[in-house]
Amino acid sequence: MGKGRIEAFSDGVIAIIITIMVLELEVPHSVDIHALLPLLPVFLSYVLSFVMIGIYWNNHHHMFHAVHHVRGGVLWANLHLLFWMSLTPFTTAWMGENHIESVPVALYGFVLMMSGIAYYILARALIALEGRDSPLAIAFGHDRKGRISVVIYAAAIGLAFVSPWIAIACYVAVALIWLVPDKRVERVLLSAHAQGDTAGPHGPSG
Amino acid sequence: MGKGRIEAFSDGVIAIIITIMVLELEVPHSVDIHALLPLLPVFLSYVLSFVMIGIYWNNHHHMFHAVHHVRGGVLWANLHLLFWMSLTPFTTAWMGENHIESVPVALYGFVLMMSGIAYYILARALIALEGRDSPLAIAFGHDRKGRISVVIYAAAIGLAFVSPWIAIACYVAVALIWLVPDKRVERVLLSAHAQGDTAGPHGPSG
Amino acid sequence: MGKGRIEAFSDGVIAIIITIMVLELEVPHSVDIHALLPLLPVFLSYVLSFVMIGIYWNNHHHMFHAVHHVRGGVLWANLHLLFWMSLTPFTTAWMGENHIESVPVALYGFVLMMSGIAYYILARALIALEGRDSPLAIAFGHDRKGRISVVIYAAAIGLAFVSPWIAIACYVAVALIWLVPDKRVERVLLSAHAQGDTAGPHGPSG
Amino acid sequence: MGKGRIEAFSDGVIAIIITIMVLELEVPHSVDIHALLPLLPVFLSYVLSFVMIGIYWNNHHHMFHAVHHVRGGVLWANLHLLFWMSLTPFTTAWMGENHIESVPVALYGFVLMMSGIAYYILARALIALEGRDSPLAIAFGHDRKGRISVVIYAAAIGLAFVSPWIAIACYVAVALIWLVPDKRVERVLLSAHAQGDTAGPHGPSG
Repeated sequence: MGKGRIEAFSDGVIAIIITIMVLELEVPHSVDIHALLPLLPVFLSYVLSFVMIGIYWNNHHHMFHAVHHVRGGVLWANLHLLFWMSLTPFTTAWMGENHIESVPVALYGFVLMMSGIAYYILARALIALEGRDSPLAIAFGHDRKGRISVVIYAAAIGLAFVSPWIAIACYVAVALIWLVPDKRVERVLLSAHAQGDTAGPHGPSG
Repeated sequence: MGKGRIEAFSDGVIAIIITIMVLELEVPHSVDIHALLPLLPVFLSYVLSFVMIGIYWNNHHHMFHAVHHVRGGVLWANLHLLFWMSLTPFTTAWMGENHIESVPVALYGFVLMMSGIAYYILARALIALEGRDSPLAIAFGHDRKGRISVVIYAAAIGLAFVSPWIAIACYVAVALIWLVPDKRVERVLLSAHAQGDTAGPHGPSG
Repeated sequence: MGKGRIEAFSDGVIAIIITIMVLELEVPHSVDIHALLPLLPVFLSYVLSFVMIGIYWNNHHHMFHAVHHVRGGVLWANLHLLFWMSLTPFTTAWMGENHIESVPVALYGFVLMMSGIAYYILARALIALEGRDSPLAIAFGHDRKGRISVVIYAAAIGLAFVSPWIAIACYVAVALIWLVPDKRVERVLLSAHAQGDTAGPHGPSG
Repeated sequence: MGKGRIEAFSDGVIAIIITIMVLELEVPHSVDIHALLPLLPVFLSYVLSFVMIGIYWNNHHHMFHAVHHVRGGVLWANLHLLFWMSLTPFTTAWMGENHIESVPVALYGFVLMMSGIAYYILARALIALEGRDSPLAIAFGHDRKGRISVVIYAAAIGLAFVSPWIAIACYVAVALIWLVPDKRVERVLLSAHAQGDTAGPHGPSG
């Protein structure tokens, strides 16, 4: 079975998720520049989620690039990932509209963590189809970035109840791991592991 | 006429249907964890509908995979299916926001049943084009799963007025028929029929 | 320049137009079956618009199937068509929520008429590129259906101020011209023209 | 890495951006023709933004047509462009609902300017991959239109505080530069530059 349609469907769903979040930016009734100030937390939440969903799309794109065929189980593993990602507009809005409070920030992290786990399951399902010696399996490797991301998310959920801003800092750190190719940043955050997998088809937490 | 564009258009519509349902999850004003409790029925309705739409996409994908060409009638049979599916966000929201009452739950089942019938009509239109001996016709076979699904939906619409929860249980049962590959579950539910069609291009009720 | 991406973009926009209309079906607060009654005009407006947009997608699909290449002007003629179609969710909602009154019904017809004219312009732009002897030009022919549709829309806009229901009947008549392959219906409505173009790449009014 | 999926994803996001703007056209409760009058600024804002997003899609289409392969950096440059474009529905709504006031009109221009800069960055990233002698680099050339657009946007942001209508006139002028192939219009507005690049893969400001 070809992979074209699973890619097209995923592109459609991810495109909608990343775009409908902007509908949460409620249009102010005032025309004053100060009317934008209360929107700032919503806007920054939108920026963070846009980057996060962007990272997922990027990794999804790379991963399926290395895939040759798909089967029933993969379709469901992919829908499972899309399900958790589809909750991001809700958690983004709840977090942003409440000016960064503990429970919404923790829930935001929970949905990110579940998306990360779902990405990992999808990657495993694809590697099982492609084979242990496939380019996909080699590129995915030990998946240091993915594992460290899930650990950071889990920690952030707890830390959100100490201070929501620490949790936010954790989410930004995960985004930076995936965005910044700077070796020193990686070395600090991923010091436990020494070898391999600097680039390729990884999810933010899978 | 190629099938690429009918697949792309269907992917687009289904991607939107499955994603806009999340807009029904209204962002709570409170930041308390208890503020999520009233959202639980809406969330569970969303999960159920996500799975149902996911099953349809999956089956649509499989069915068109076995199709070689399409014609005018197929385009309309496909739009007819998309029409009934497009009502799912409405019935999901009505069911979820009213904490599982008889009439909304029955209407939810009615739309599922009509989608199932529309899927069956689409399958027949495609088989008529492909021929009785085509791989599509053979894979579709007697379509036990599809027929039993429609019967369960019809029963659930009536049973919703006895107890909406019995109807919900029926919908979950249909989802399980399509999701769980466990032979025993199938044997119990589909005991009336003995032969054929374990896998392939079936709709949840067609 | 290939036609793949103009088809994909049009599919995306049309898929969104046809699906977001369902968001106008506001979820009733009551669980009574009677709570659905006030939604009936909105629902019927939705059905009519779904069929209309479906006819456009169908014809767009057929027309581009016969096209070999596109150029700058075609991209803009296509965007012009999508612009008028994108206003359909607004006119559908205004018509439906006001229980079929003159002005909204006339505006609904105006947007349909402009879409029809935009479709005609797009067809002419494509024929200019493909050539007067191309299969596209031959299939498009005198475009009886398209011309008669625009005339009916124009009449309906005026008749909406006599009775909105006569205008609605006109819109349904146009839909039937495109949907029903019955020769007698066509013969009655299209008696002025005798030859040619029974099938092919026509828009509801172009 | 192929360019198909980055095109498909961009088409999806742009299709959603261009279509959800129509949701800002709130359905009036009255059925009077005068009920449409207060919607006029919202409608005209929608028309302007539809044309602007249409120009971007058009140019994106042309630019990627000349591209042979993409890499990680291009994916992010493209997401950066989509981010700024995704803010257009918000700025359009704020501008339209407040009947053309200074701050919303300036913000509208700011988002257009940032989109223009993002388009320029994307073009540079693609040219770096394709090579200085590639057809893309030659077609892009000095990019007079793109540079002049960014300058006009910057000026319009300041002029919005003199009169919002002057800023609106600037936005319309930019649209005309890209839409009207009239040489005289170009000559007046672009008199500083004498040679090259009349057509091809340019963004409204990149």
